Amino acid sequence: MRLLTRISDVQRALDKEREAGRRVGFVPTMGFLHEGHASLMRRARAENDVVFVSIFVNPLQFGANEDLAAYPRDLDSDLSLCETERVDVIFHPNVDEMYPDPNPFRVTVGEIGSKLCGRARPGHFDGVATVVAKLFNIAGPCRAYFGRKDAQQLVIIERLARALNFPVTVVGCDIVREPDGLAMSSRNIYLNGEERRAAVVLKRALDEAAAAIGSRERDARRIGNLMGSRISSEPLAKLDYAAVVDAETLEDLDRLDRPALLAVAAWVGKARLIDNTTVTPEGASSEGSS
Amino acid sequence: MRLLTRISDVQRALDKEREAGRRVGFVPTMGFLHEGHASLMRRARAENDVVFVSIFVNPLQFGANEDLAAYPRDLDSDLSLCETERVDVIFHPNVDEMYPDPNPFRVTVGEIGSKLCGRARPGHFDGVATVVAKLFNIAGPCRAYFGRKDAQQLVIIERLARALNFPVTVVGCDIVREPDGLAMSSRNIYLNGEERRAAVVLKRALDEAAAAIGSRERDARRIGNLMGSRISSEPLAKLDYAAVVDAETLEDLDRLDRPALLAVAAWVGKARLIDNTTVTPEGASSEGSS
Repeated sequence: MRLLTRISDVQRALDKEREAGRRVGFVPTMGFLHEGHASLMRRARAENDVVFVSIFVNPLQFGANEDLAAYPRDLDSDLSLCETERVDVIFHPNVDEMYPDPNPFRVTVGEIGSKLCGRARPGHFDGVATVVAKLFNIAGPCRAYFGRKDAQQLVIIERLARALNFPVTVVGCDIVREPDGLAMSSRNIYLNGEERRAAVVLKRALDEAAAAIGSRERDARRIGNLMGSRISSEPLAKLDYAAVVDAETLEDLDRLDRPALLAVAAWVGKARLIDNTTVTPEGASSEGSS
Repeated sequence: MRLLTRISDVQRALDKEREAGRRVGFVPTMGFLHEGHASLMRRARAENDVVFVSIFVNPLQFGANEDLAAYPRDLDSDLSLCETERVDVIFHPNVDEMYPDPNPFRVTVGEIGSKLCGRARPGHFDGVATVVAKLFNIAGPCRAYFGRKDAQQLVIIERLARALNFPVTVVGCDIVREPDGLAMSSRNIYLNGEERRAAVVLKRALDEAAAAIGSRERDARRIGNLMGSRISSEPLAKLDYAAVVDAETLEDLDRLDRPALLAVAAWVGKARLIDNTTVTPEGASSEGSS
C-alpha cells in the first residue's frame, strides 16, 4: 500500500497501472473511515485491479458556519483500515496541493444542488462536484464508489459524470448501519451518549414511513409529515427536512406513483445527520420518473 | 479518416488507440475551417500518433443576441481540409448528443471570464470551459491545440486544465494571418469587400502599439489609447476594447513592466473581430507576472 500526497505522484503511479491494462476503482473519502467506507473498498477490491482511496477533507464543500475545522481526522486509524481492505494507493493531499489558486474554477450543478441538503448548505454540492471532477481527472478511474447515505450526492455525481462525459461508472453502495439502525457516519463521533441514543429517530422515521407506504399510503405530504413528526417528537433532535421526492430528479412528489426517495435530515447536538431510503410503491413503474 | 457523430463511438475508437499506447492530439473547432485550423492540425500531426478534430458549434458559448444561427458552416469543405491534414478521427455531434439535459452542469471560470471579451459576452467563457471539459473527457487527449488569436480563451483553458487537473497539455499556436495582416477567423466571411479592407485596422493598431513600446513607451493607458484611437479612426470599425493587460492574469496594467497582452476587439459590419499580440518589454522579467 502506497501513501501519496502529491497529485503528480498519483498520476504517475496510476498511469503506469492503466498502461499495463489494469482497471482502477476509486473510493473518495474525507477520512475518519468506518465500516461504510470499508464496504465501498471491498466492492472496489472485488471489481477492479487497483483500489485507489482519497482521504481529503474538502474545504470547498463546507459553508462558513460549518464544521470544517472540527471535522474528525485520524490518519493512522484510516491507514490501518485501508491496509485491512487491501487498498493499493492512498491519496492524502493538503489543501494547497488541491487548491493552489485562491479562485479555483468551479463545477456548478445548478438547481438540483439547491434541494434537500442544498437548502441548508448553499454551494455544498458545487464544492463536491468540483473536488470529484478533480479527483476523477487525477485518478482516471474506471469505476467510482459512493455510499447511498449521501443520496443527493450520489444522484448529483451520477449526473456530473453524464453531463461532463467523465469515462467513469458511478457505483452506489448500500447504507451500512449500526446494530440499532443508525446510519454510519464520521459525524456520529460528535454525539454524546444521550444524543447517540436519540439519533436512531431518523431511521425510525424512515421505517414508519415505509410501513405506511406498505399499508397503501400514497400521499407524499402525509408521509413527509409522518417522518417530520416522528423526528420532532425526539427532544434532542431538531428537524431540518423530511422529504418525499422523485428518486431520480429529487423533485417533490405529490403522490407516490413512482420510485421515491424518502430523505431526512436533523441536528442532534452538534451533528447534522442525514438518512434515507428508496421505495418503489407496488404498481409504480420503476422507470416512471422520467 | 473516420467521421463520428456519437460520443460512445468516439470513446470506443480512442480507447482502442490509447490501449495500444498511441497518444491522441486534439484540435477542437467550430468548423468552417481555415489555414489557422490547418496549422493546429499540422502541429498535432507532428506531435501525436492520432489526430482527433471536433467540429461543433457550441450553443453554450453564444449569447442570446449573438450569431449562433448565422455562424458559418461547410462540412464538406471542412472534411476535405481534414483529409489534407491527415486527421484520423473527426467528431461532429449534434446539439442533442452533447447536451441531452436541458439543465446541464457548467464549468464556471470566475472573474477571469468577465474581463476583455467577457464584458461583451457574459457567460461565453463558462460555455467554452464546459464544452472543452466535455470534449477532454470524451477524447482523453494527451495534448490539445488552441490558437493564440483567442488569447483569453487560451489563458482560460490553460487554467481550466490546471484547476480541474485534466491530464492534458494545452498547446498555444501562433496566429495565422492573411497577406495584409488580418488574423484568420471563420467570422471574416461576414465582411463585404469594403469591410474586409477596413478590418486590417486591428492589426495596424497592434503594430503601432508595438512600435511605440519599441520606442520605450511604457504607459499602459497611453498604449491602450493609441490602439483605440487607431481603430476608431476607421469609419467602418466600432471599437469594443483596446486593452493592455498582464499576459497571464489578464489584469489591467499601469506600466509595461512585465509580459503584456495587447488585445483589441471591434465590430466591423456584422463581424465581431479580435486580435492580439504579446510583448515582453526590454528589461521586464518574462516571469514577472506572478
